Parts: sequence; C-alpha cells; structure tokens
Amino acid sequence: MTYCLGIKIDQATIMISDSRTSAGVDNISTYSKMWRYGVPGERQFVLCSAGNLATTQSVIAKLERDVKNGASPSLLTVSDMHELAEYIGKVSVAVQAKAGGGGVFEATFLLAGEIQGSANALYMIYSQGNFIKSSSHVPYLQIGEAKYGKPILDRVIQESTSVDQAIVCGLISMDATLKSNLTVGPPIELYVLENGSLKLGQYRLFGEDDEYMRSLRNLWNTAMENAVDAMPSLVLN
Amino acid sequence: MTYCLGIKIDQATIMISDSRTSAGVDNISTYSKMWRYGVPGERQFVLCSAGNLATTQSVIAKLERDVKNGASPSLLTVSDMHELAEYIGKVSVAVQAKAGGGGVFEATFLLAGEIQGSANALYMIYSQGNFIKSSSHVPYLQIGEAKYGKPILDRVIQESTSVDQAIVCGLISMDATLKSNLTVGPPIELYVLENGSLKLGQYRLFGEDDEYMRSLRNLWNTAMENAVDAMPSLVLN
Repeated sequence: MTYCLGIKIDQATIMISDSRTSAGVDNISTYSKMWRYGVPGERQFVLCSAGNLATTQSVIAKLERDVKNGASPSLLTVSDMHELAEYIGKVSVAVQAKAGGGGVFEATFLLAGEIQGSANALYMIYSQGNFIKSSSHVPYLQIGEAKYGKPILDRVIQESTSVDQAIVCGLISMDATLKSNLTVGPPIELYVLENGSLKLGQYRLFGEDDEYMRSLRNLWNTAMENAVDAMPSLVLN
Repeated sequence: MTYCLGIKIDQATIMISDSRTSAGVDNISTYSKMWRYGVPGERQFVLCSAGNLATTQSVIAKLERDVKNGASPSLLTVSDMHELAEYIGKVSVAVQAKAGGGGVFEATFLLAGEIQGSANALYMIYSQGNFIKSSSHVPYLQIGEAKYGKPILDRVIQESTSVDQAIVCGLISMDATLKSNLTVGPPIELYVLENGSLKLGQYRLFGEDDEYMRSLRNLWNTAMENAVDAMPSLVLN
C-alpha cells in the first residue's frame, strides 16, 4: 500500500509520500513514489503515485520519453495544469491497457504544479484517466491508505493555513498512517512548491531514524495526551 | 457502515457505538448497535454489532429467547466470557447460514463484560464465529469503519489510562469518524462497565445536537490547531 498527500494552501503546494511497496507482507521493498520535473521560471510539477508499480514506472518513463523525443503533448508543451492532468491520465490508461487492463494494473496519481501564465493546481488522477481538482473548502487530496491520516487534516487544514503549519500537519497525518498501518513505510518524501514562484521546490527526505520526525512523533504523542487531559470530563450520572 | 469501539483499561471497560445503518446512501436509518444485559452481582454484558442488520437483530433475538426458554448455553448459564464469546459466535454463524450464508449476511461483534468468579474481558467475534481478546499492549478493539479513529487510540490509550481519559479519547475517536465518513452517524451510545463491580454499567446517549459532544469537538479542533502551532517548524534549507 501507499499513502500520498497533497495540500494546496494560499502560499504553497505541499506533497508528501511514503516509500513502501508491497506485493504481500513477505515481499516489501522501498521505491520513491514522488517524481519531480521543472523548468525554472516556466513550469514546475510534482507527481505522486499509488497502485501498481510497473504501471507508475511506465507512466513516468513515457512522460520522460515524450520530452526527450520532442513529442506533443509533453511536459514541455502543455499550457496549463488541466491539459497536463488530461495527458497523464491518457498515458496511464494506455499503459494499463498494454499490460492487459483490470484492477491489478491500476494506478492513481496526485499531480501538483504551475505553468507560466496559468493557475497552479492540485489534481487527483484516477486509474480511469479522469481527474478531480482540490477545492477551496477541502484544500487537500489523498491517494492510497488515506483514512488514518484524514481526521487531523479535516480538523486543521484550510487555505489560509501557513506553510509551516501545513508541513507539520501533513507529516503528522503521514506519521499516524505509518503508526497504524504496516504497509506504509519510510523514507518519507516532502516537496514544497511556492505558489507563483515557478522556482524548483524545496525537497526533503526523512529516513527511518530521522531526528525531526522522531521528535515530532514524541512531541505530538505528548501533545495528544495533554489535550485529552485538558478536555472536560463527561459527567455520567 | 458502522463504527464501534471497546476499550479495556484497568478500572473499566468502555463501549462506544454509532447508530447509522445504510443500505446505500439513499437508504439511511438509525438503529442502536449496542445491546446490554446484566444480573447485578452476578454477570454484566454489553454487545455491539457491525454488519448485516437482520443478522445482528436475529442474533440478539436468539440470545433473549434462549434466556426466556431456560436453554443451555444461554447468557444466564455461561460460566466465563470465553464461553459466552463461543456461544454468540455459534449463534451468529447459525443465523447467517439460515439466511443463505455469504458476505452480505456477515456480522461482527464486540463483546465485553464480566461473570462472577472469572475475569472480565473484551472480545471481537468475527463473522466466522471465531474471536480474539484485547491484549494488554493494545487494550482496545474496533469493528466497522475503524481507520479514521485509530491514530488517537494508538497515541493515547494504555491499560493505565483513567476512565475519564479513555471516555474522552474514545469519543474523539468516534467524532473523527463521524467527521470524515458520512456512513457513521449519531446518536452515539456510551456504556461504562466498572471492572470487578458486577454492577449495571453507566449508559449515556449523545443525540445529534448533544452539548457535551459539540463542546468536545470545538475544544478538540482548537487543541489540534494549537498543538500543530506548538510543534517545531521544519527547517527546509
């Protein structure tokens, strides 16, 4: 399984992904599920994937090949994020069909980025190739093992949330998932794209023993215990 | 869908259940999923159910009929909680088989209670009639839509947790599920069995606009925002 999360707040778009790949509990491996591409000043993208690893790797290989071959559409020719989502959806459907189709080859993607002259956006691309955009009411999207990490996002994330808050909240959402589900595992990758800058994003990899993640987990556990203690007790009778 | 939660701490056993029943999003209704039975000074039980409503209602009807008819085994004749779990598992399997068997008639149960002369216990009874007991490492069990409400339990609940803390934590786990999933809904039922007392438990029903639940939700949302603010910011570069 996988857990990837995209948060689109006023100032930035943040992507977080785990790196565990499993075909059964005795066949566990580590693969990055985050792929970044950018031309500074012109276009910046980040793509996270969940589902069949052969499908997601083939999709990314095709995107890279189309750039190399000067094909159109490609990452370099699309003029807005909607067009890019449509292109990636088509590539994904074609890759799945080539493998024989069916549920086992399915993959879903989170796509975020910005192209000069058009708005930045965060999309979820379904295995059928269609896609949805994040909304201003719920400015985040998740793929994979999404349920464990959803409540903290529902309680905290708004468009006006600061970058620092959104990063902390996203990492806690990921940590809750790691803690509750064995099929999601480190390293964790984080990418922060500043909205409107068209600059390369800021990237951070958190390994198994990352000090910041360990400290965040401990502080958060203590904060949760303290928060429970601070709630009014229920008077039962 | 359904969400039921049992927490077995040193001082008490706590059960919490929602009341939404749905056969599709346009056929939603409200049924209690919590059933209590006790003979003060001798035995106290609480049973929560998830799955097919016809199955769970038939199981409870059969338990009541067996008591009325003086059958053995029955709620009045079993001598410990293990025997009770076995009996309820058998009744459940028989009820499902009568309806034709198969996934659609499945039901799972949380069973908690105590019988004079034997230890109190918390069990999860699977649709196949087999069952597991809560452990001292993870002193809680969940059935139904369990993922949203799991992280807060994983971070806070231990056997030494106080009754007040466990009630607050359990209600927050339920509220997280209500907030993130439409198929789990109020009223919420709470039952607290004091370990070793063999007294009737303390029961509380929380309706849609319950003041304590509303206040808990608001205070918790604020506590989460404050906790996120209090975490150390990640230094990215």
